[in-house]
Amino acid sequence: MAKTKYVYFFGDGKAEGNAGMRAELGGKGANLAEMASIGLPVPSGFTISTDVCKYFYDNGKKYPATLNADVDTYLAKLERSMGKKLGDSSDPLLVSVRSGAAISMPGMMDTILNLGLNDKSVEGLSKKTNNPRFAWDAYRRFIQMFGDVAMGVPHDEFEKAISEVKAKKNIKLDTEMDTSDLQTLVGKYKAIYKEHTGKDFPQNPKDQMWHAINAVFGSWMNSRAIKYRELNNIKGLKGTAVTVMAMVFGNKGESSGTGVCFSRDPSNGENIFMGEYLMNAQGEDVVAGIRTPEKLSQLEKANPKIYKQLCDVRVKLEKHYRDMQDMEFTVEEGKLFMLQCRNGKRTGQAAVRMAVEMVKEKLITRDEALLRVEPEQLDQLLHPALDPKAIKATAAIAEGLNASPGAGSGQIVFTADEAEKWAKDGKKVLLVRKETSPEDIAGMAASQGILTSTGGRTSHAAVVARGMGTPCVSGCAAVTFPNANECVIGGKSFKKGDNITIDGTTGKVYAGILPVVPATISGELETFLKWADEVRAASVRKINGHTVTGFEVRANADQPDQAENAFKFGANGIGLCRTEHMFFDPAKLPSFRAMILADNTEQRVEALKKILPLQKTDFFGIIKAMEGRPVTIRLLDPPLNEFVPKPGAAEEIAELSKATGISVAALNVKIASLQEANPMLGHRGCRLAITYPEIYEMQVEAIALACADAASKGIKHNVQIMIPNVVTYREVKQIREQAEVIIAKVNKDKNTKLKFQIGTMVEFPRAALTADQLAGYADFFSFGTNDLTQTTFGFSRDDYGKFCPSYLKQNVLDEDPFKTLDAEGPGALMRIAEEKGRSVNAALHLGICGEHGGDPASIALCYDIGLNYVSCSPFRVPIARLAGAQAVVRTAMKIKEAKKAAAAKAKKAAEKKAPAKKPAVAKKPAKKVAEKKAVKKAAAKKPAVAKKTAAAKKPAKKAKK
Amino acid sequence: MAKTKYVYFFGDGKAEGNAGMRAELGGKGANLAEMASIGLPVPSGFTISTDVCKYFYDNGKKYPATLNADVDTYLAKLERSMGKKLGDSSDPLLVSVRSGAAISMPGMMDTILNLGLNDKSVEGLSKKTNNPRFAWDAYRRFIQMFGDVAMGVPHDEFEKAISEVKAKKNIKLDTEMDTSDLQTLVGKYKAIYKEHTGKDFPQNPKDQMWHAINAVFGSWMNSRAIKYRELNNIKGLKGTAVTVMAMVFGNKGESSGTGVCFSRDPSNGENIFMGEYLMNAQGEDVVAGIRTPEKLSQLEKANPKIYKQLCDVRVKLEKHYRDMQDMEFTVEEGKLFMLQCRNGKRTGQAAVRMAVEMVKEKLITRDEALLRVEPEQLDQLLHPALDPKAIKATAAIAEGLNASPGAGSGQIVFTADEAEKWAKDGKKVLLVRKETSPEDIAGMAASQGILTSTGGRTSHAAVVARGMGTPCVSGCAAVTFPNANECVIGGKSFKKGDNITIDGTTGKVYAGILPVVPATISGELETFLKWADEVRAASVRKINGHTVTGFEVRANADQPDQAENAFKFGANGIGLCRTEHMFFDPAKLPSFRAMILADNTEQRVEALKKILPLQKTDFFGIIKAMEGRPVTIRLLDPPLNEFVPKPGAAEEIAELSKATGISVAALNVKIASLQEANPMLGHRGCRLAITYPEIYEMQVEAIALACADAASKGIKHNVQIMIPNVVTYREVKQIREQAEVIIAKVNKDKNTKLKFQIGTMVEFPRAALTADQLAGYADFFSFGTNDLTQTTFGFSRDDYGKFCPSYLKQNVLDEDPFKTLDAEGPGALMRIAEEKGRSVNAALHLGICGEHGGDPASIALCYDIGLNYVSCSPFRVPIARLAGAQAVVRTAMKIKEAKKAAAAKAKKAAEKKAPAKKPAVAKKPAKKVAEKKAVKKAAAKKPAVAKKTAAAKKPAKKAKK
Repeated sequence: MAKTKYVYFFGDGKAEGNAGMRAELGGKGANLAEMASIGLPVPSGFTISTDVCKYFYDNGKKYPATLNADVDTYLAKLERSMGKKLGDSSDPLLVSVRSGAAISMPGMMDTILNLGLNDKSVEGLSKKTNNPRFAWDAYRRFIQMFGDVAMGVPHDEFEKAISEVKAKKNIKLDTEMDTSDLQTLVGKYKAIYKEHTGKDFPQNPKDQMWHAINAVFGSWMNSRAIKYRELNNIKGLKGTAVTVMAMVFGNKGESSGTGVCFSRDPSNGENIFMGEYLMNAQGEDVVAGIRTPEKLSQLEKANPKIYKQLCDVRVKLEKHYRDMQDMEFTVEEGKLFMLQCRNGKRTGQAAVRMAVEMVKEKLITRDEALLRVEPEQLDQLLHPALDPKAIKATAAIAEGLNASPGAGSGQIVFTADEAEKWAKDGKKVLLVRKETSPEDIAGMAASQGILTSTGGRTSHAAVVARGMGTPCVSGCAAVTFPNANECVIGGKSFKKGDNITIDGTTGKVYAGILPVVPATISGELETFLKWADEVRAASVRKINGHTVTGFEVRANADQPDQAENAFKFGANGIGLCRTEHMFFDPAKLPSFRAMILADNTEQRVEALKKILPLQKTDFFGIIKAMEGRPVTIRLLDPPLNEFVPKPGAAEEIAELSKATGISVAALNVKIASLQEANPMLGHRGCRLAITYPEIYEMQVEAIALACADAASKGIKHNVQIMIPNVVTYREVKQIREQAEVIIAKVNKDKNTKLKFQIGTMVEFPRAALTADQLAGYADFFSFGTNDLTQTTFGFSRDDYGKFCPSYLKQNVLDEDPFKTLDAEGPGALMRIAEEKGRSVNAALHLGICGEHGGDPASIALCYDIGLNYVSCSPFRVPIARLAGAQAVVRTAMKIKEAKKAAAAKAKKAAEKKAPAKKPAVAKKPAKKVAEKKAVKKAAAKKPAVAKKTAAAKKPAKKAKK
Repeated sequence: MAKTKYVYFFGDGKAEGNAGMRAELGGKGANLAEMASIGLPVPSGFTISTDVCKYFYDNGKKYPATLNADVDTYLAKLERSMGKKLGDSSDPLLVSVRSGAAISMPGMMDTILNLGLNDKSVEGLSKKTNNPRFAWDAYRRFIQMFGDVAMGVPHDEFEKAISEVKAKKNIKLDTEMDTSDLQTLVGKYKAIYKEHTGKDFPQNPKDQMWHAINAVFGSWMNSRAIKYRELNNIKGLKGTAVTVMAMVFGNKGESSGTGVCFSRDPSNGENIFMGEYLMNAQGEDVVAGIRTPEKLSQLEKANPKIYKQLCDVRVKLEKHYRDMQDMEFTVEEGKLFMLQCRNGKRTGQAAVRMAVEMVKEKLITRDEALLRVEPEQLDQLLHPALDPKAIKATAAIAEGLNASPGAGSGQIVFTADEAEKWAKDGKKVLLVRKETSPEDIAGMAASQGILTSTGGRTSHAAVVARGMGTPCVSGCAAVTFPNANECVIGGKSFKKGDNITIDGTTGKVYAGILPVVPATISGELETFLKWADEVRAASVRKINGHTVTGFEVRANADQPDQAENAFKFGANGIGLCRTEHMFFDPAKLPSFRAMILADNTEQRVEALKKILPLQKTDFFGIIKAMEGRPVTIRLLDPPLNEFVPKPGAAEEIAELSKATGISVAALNVKIASLQEANPMLGHRGCRLAITYPEIYEMQVEAIALACADAASKGIKHNVQIMIPNVVTYREVKQIREQAEVIIAKVNKDKNTKLKFQIGTMVEFPRAALTADQLAGYADFFSFGTNDLTQTTFGFSRDDYGKFCPSYLKQNVLDEDPFKTLDAEGPGALMRIAEEKGRSVNAALHLGICGEHGGDPASIALCYDIGLNYVSCSPFRVPIARLAGAQAVVRTAMKIKEAKKAAAAKAKKAAEKKAPAKKPAVAKKPAKKVAEKKAVKKAAAKKPAVAKKTAAAKKPAKKAKK
């Protein structure tokens, strides 16, 4: 095996690395190499790879044996390139030692500048530049940075020394110090250094360099960097690279300067050159914000030649990288140097606009354009958001989970009833509760936002809020309720009627009303999402021998207005229309409760009769809104106790007693009998239809009558009936047979020829495991991945908040399984269900209607499994449209790459075969081989999951030589 | 295809059917055929097969077209055999028309006797027998039976007519009616018949016969028969057969008679001939209980020749059937006729004794003997039982679920505390509660029995009671609690201190104290179970390419005394030692609660330190009791809220506040925070160890110290550590690593070399689906099939009682999945786990510790899946020992049969090949063939599940000609 290459040179128009080597060189090192090799003016340097960092930590902080010699070789090369020597007393080479991982971790790791200065070379630099102040300032900066960063000398000590010097001279600004002040300061700094390290400040530049390299590698595991990776879910990196690079100085007078620029506007995507520039300054001055930088246009006026050169770089880099670039540059005495470039971060709006315009400019293909926008970024475009200026100016009082995006402001109310009443009076209200339940729906709909102290991203509050497009912050533990008319948020007391603002996009909570900026859907977004739709519609996959065409996006919508919203957001249909929410309508609730409280079938049927026409009207509205698109109506799902007061809710029970004529005592007994120890695993869904067939019969009749009505009015309809909570085909068989009797009756009565697709939810493992049996009676499966995740993991989504954070923090889980569908648990069952189901019924239509249907990584998995569609809340439809298209594009890319690799392998094998030199390899037991194949197959099945950021996207890795 | 044969003849020493054709001929028909063919005196007859019954119901109550002609043919054959003709006016053939299904349904379906009599043939019979009274009595009985059974004439009408006749003559007994009375009665009967049917009583005997056949087939679906099948879980039968058989009469005077006998004593198994006999009587007289029958010894005195003949039949039949026979016979004028024989029902004690003795007599093999006892029958032998006489004499006041067998009597108490206190005072108490919880353990242990109004067979009360061997009736809905010191059972009020008795074997509840008979384990039982152990130990299976040897039975035991019990009952080890029950010990509870209520790790560690020595003592006791047998200790499993008072339990919370010094308000907050929406899927098991590692660390230390202690005292120990609630290998990896650090520390401190097998529960689907990953870090898997069933079905075992009865009644489920492990849901996941787990770790030890470990059908499935052991409650150990052995024997039989069938098929194929006449069959697509193979494979995997009763066991079906 070839020896691992640890050090890579760049400079003089050449480089050993390239932009594809982010994993080895870090983002910074890789792009410096790339810029050097395409002839841009980059100071020469070399990068020590992340493999060294990995080795360092794998081997008790030791370096590979060869590294020392390698670095010597490369340093010599650098010295040759720059025509200067490190530590030279007349014209010293100065270098920076910089960190840089494959994924950007801004400010988290160490960097040391001006390395190479010592008591002698400072004099050399002074003479050579004819600028003693500059030289001594560089030296004191170096000692300070080196001491602080590499040797752990307290930062304050250096600051104290500066203050002393300035105080003595009675000056205020650092820039007011003259050469002799700086010389005094260097003396003080060296004393401080010795005091804290017990050693003299190192005068040998190579010692300096190795200390700096140690410091950078060491900074990979500093607590700040670890925390950052944890927070940003950055995993699987080898470590940081270290780039040692010749210094260039922007602070050598008026013909020098430094700046940052973007090849397009990162905030709105406009194709203009923009940036900031500071004359006679070093990069750190820009960062420190001591002076206000000028717009790039100033550079154009001050130095049109350099500006022209920079414009050329802009064009060249954008063409080269085929993406918007974020660049850092320094001008040293009229000479331009590029210090860094990378794909620039951008807002969602900018990302979309750039992607669309770059296609029009023929810079990138449509497929590439689709990969340029993070699906989650679209969220910013879809909800009104808090004004960024206001956010900056206001401290949040608490932070919870960003459960449903968007900004909501209003007067605090503590009950859903109040929310409704106050909203009717024209007030804007914000509902603050411990948690919500289905009976709060109307109050939730009346609120500008919802804040709960418990519950996760899939809690009732969160799910319903997303469905409604209402902002929601859930699980905000800093909210407590000392009494019924007061809450304490982050230690601050709020009374009913006080104003607060929540930001569902970030999870933050603010006192008072913060201003918002409205959502706009630009023309580019429409174009962009149309492309996504086209790509998905054109997709053809082979899944377990079956051809699956297209990949639709449907929406979960329960009410006609939600259906209309879904349609507006581009849904191909309704993948989940929950019928239970309809029963909370004040017109239906009394009859529904009478049904639940019925003592016998007759009473139940009587109550259901009253609900029938009302349900029919609901269904008719949805059918009408969807104009012939498919609408999947799920029959009643939740346990009946959700529709009656809770045990002990004396007031509500008394009211119910009045309304129904049933005694309070009898109600108490009935309500108690409806309680369950584990309601998630209780008497719900089709289990209700086995015990009380008349409920589903009423619902099916309402559906059939609504369709008959639509047909008579010339309205197109395409309703599918879905049975929830199925665990055995016999449930489906029985309920289907009962439904078909009802449909036949309606057809006879109404003289129609209605036919319905009837399918099932697959939300419990047994349904997946017996999918071949179900498929004999079901026209479609819809995966209910919330419940499937709950049961496959044995995690209650209402309770897992107690341990899930520990699991994520300790890497026991990589992802919150309720946010991103787990491929090995519920995902594995979905594969089983797909294979078993289609083996019996090749036409079986498969979809997902759990919360995961709106999560990009989960959508990619669904595509890979072979689903025909995903269904998600209306506000996530655009995200799903894009994420689905990305899955299509990435899968195609992967197949192409695999083919290429296979061809290359075949070629190599053919070449090897020719000489026929190798001895026969020891025979492996057939079993082992089979296992390996199985493992490979499994690995091959893993979906092309969306990457964290478009910027982090890796070009195909080139083979090492 | 050959035409289905619908009718089978028997008689004259020959028969077309045989005993193996129960499915077609019913039990009665098959055994009549068998008896006829081995030369026993059986009246001739023919049987219309169950296929006709199936056809009848499949085709709108029509018969196969050929049936009429077939019956004519067979009737003619019967007439020839008997030398008489049906309806002959001088010497008529009389027949009985009898029902009989493959599984006996005593008294549920119809039978008609004396068919063939009409106004003319009654005179013929009268003359021929020279017994007019007999003839007219037969005729009136026939009209009554035919009218009632075949034509639905109200039974009362006939009884009224008899009363009128008797009243007129002023007589009391039916037998006092003379010929003319009977003639009058026949006239009245015919009038009644005409009045209700609108037609004359049919004089044509063939019409009579067809009406009777219709009636018998019709009775298959009468509500009584349906209910019986439902109650006895009889499924999959084709229907009833109809046997038409020549009548013989035991009521032709003193040389005639009828009786029932057993070839051995069915109550205790003794090898004696026993039975009952009535002279001058018909079978129905014995059944009706009008006269008290005499012992068989009377027959010996009265008619030694017949008795001798009957003894010969006894020996011949037992030798032939190789099992104890239950026989019916009739003596007609000194001639013996056998009317029925079948394998006799027997008590558990009798079953064991017969099985052991028959092996000694070389009548059957040991393997056969093991199949002769229903495992559940052993239960009768293991618990003290209510005196059967007392049961007969006392009406039950209510009935619940037979949750834990045995009889318990005592004074009613309503709380566990009371139970403890009263028991301490020497009182025998019976705990009556709505439900029980872990804190009730001590009180439960102090009780003679437990009665709960809610909860199923796997409720807390039931599981714990079985573990303790305490009788329990659970889910007894007839128990209500009007106030804290009173309960109402079946409408009767009981105060605290009143006596009641429960029968955990039947689920019945009685007022007062009923006497019990103590459990005895006879010498035969010991022999019998030793055979079972030998068979299991010798078993060698190939499962997915791995050889699995032996099939152990372990016990679930938490305390030293339970462990001793388990050992006494023959357990090979402890498969599940739950550590949580130990914490309810008053010595440990305060510290454990302090641990739960701790605000930080330090407080928690402090509290755990106090528990450590106490847990060590518990473990030491169990280790000592098991004398080196394996003991699998499960680390803490339940959610922490089970150990603190319930929210709102003000008194208990106040007490806890006093004990801990934590304010009531703070306790309320903490307790509320511990509550969960779905505790089954909540913060429990190893999830606690991820959030609070110190808990398991303490437990592992206690285990290691206990073993070190045992080692130092020369006590053998074999402890395995089990991690519950695992869903990802990373939990196992992390917890194992932490445990190994602790074990190393103990080894160092104690100078020991302890090593522990560390394994996991597999109780959530994700664990099974990722078993290959788990197997890299686990030495064993123990399937927790309670939780696995809960999550695979999405059924909460605390709540499924609301819908499970409907599911079973409507055949949506065949079995209660918490009673019998479902092969297609949790069973399928177990197969996946076995295959994946052993593919990585061939030495992986597999067991089950869920409640199913004591269920015979589930044990068979576990054997088939390839488990190394089952673990169940101590009192079910003997049952599991037998059930496991039966699985071994049945599997071996199946393999043998399959080999035989394959050989026969190969032979047939070879014969076919020789002529090579057939054209090439149309090629099936490869996929379809593969599918079929897969289906076959799956089918082949189904376990040899224990049959319902030993008597229902089917001999190998002989090929039809």
